[in-house]
Amino acid sequence: MKAMFKMCTLGAAALLLSANVQATEENDKAIEYRQDVLGVMAWQMGPLGAMAKGDVDYDAEEFQLRANNLAALADMPWEGFVEGSFRGGDHSVDNDALAKISDNMDDFMSKSNDLVVETTTLAELSGGDDFSAMRRQVGKVGQSCKSCHDEYRGD
Amino acid sequence: MKAMFKMCTLGAAALLLSANVQATEENDKAIEYRQDVLGVMAWQMGPLGAMAKGDVDYDAEEFQLRANNLAALADMPWEGFVEGSFRGGDHSVDNDALAKISDNMDDFMSKSNDLVVETTTLAELSGGDDFSAMRRQVGKVGQSCKSCHDEYRGD
Repeated sequence: MKAMFKMCTLGAAALLLSANVQATEENDKAIEYRQDVLGVMAWQMGPLGAMAKGDVDYDAEEFQLRANNLAALADMPWEGFVEGSFRGGDHSVDNDALAKISDNMDDFMSKSNDLVVETTTLAELSGGDDFSAMRRQVGKVGQSCKSCHDEYRGD
Repeated sequence: MKAMFKMCTLGAAALLLSANVQATEENDKAIEYRQDVLGVMAWQMGPLGAMAKGDVDYDAEEFQLRANNLAALADMPWEGFVEGSFRGGDHSVDNDALAKISDNMDDFMSKSNDLVVETTTLAELSGGDDFSAMRRQVGKVGQSCKSCHDEYRGD
């Protein structure tokens, strides 16, 4: 009976451990996914920022391509910000997402929605010929990134 | 005169070194970018594969979302496959892209275009109600990934 109890305890401990390992792996995958999307967005944003600042010449075709890509990506990262995947959570991948996201999920999602709105506007403008408006809108997209990073991204 | 010559030689060497460092950094960024896009694509493909195999129930809304995301992403990775960024090239980031891509760029780009075509078809089908056709098309997308990996991806 005692041996049976010990086996059951060991079995339960093994199950818990296995559930923990699985949670850690899932959080790691979510972190890597969202970091991948944000990396792709940064790459697409690069030439838009450079054109807006005048560091490189305006190229209508490239501007529109990058703006469309950015708008298509803007919806994607957020499903990767899952409970347990923030700093101090149950994961093995380092990341800059502060734990307070968890307590401010409505605000975080509202900020993510701002980015969707601003990048969609940029994509719409990018087909036209008002480069001043496009430049201003690139600024608004950048401001939207910054507003979330200032609040929820650690050093 | 001799000192002047030495200084010029050192200056030229420093310039060359700096150009090399810059090339390495640019190749590293290109590798990380393409790996990021391909990582995001794998994440989006996951639920499509699971629904096609019957591992999870078909969810029309999620299927369409993932298919649209995949089609939007399919054009993006290829600009990251630049000369010098393949195995044996001038980079510090490990990667699986075989050097022979460089000598077979036409075939590589033709394979990448196949993926764009197959994912676009999947996105088009995903709005409808022919789940059998969608399942077959998920298979074609997977086959398109595999065809390129078999040829150009190392272990």
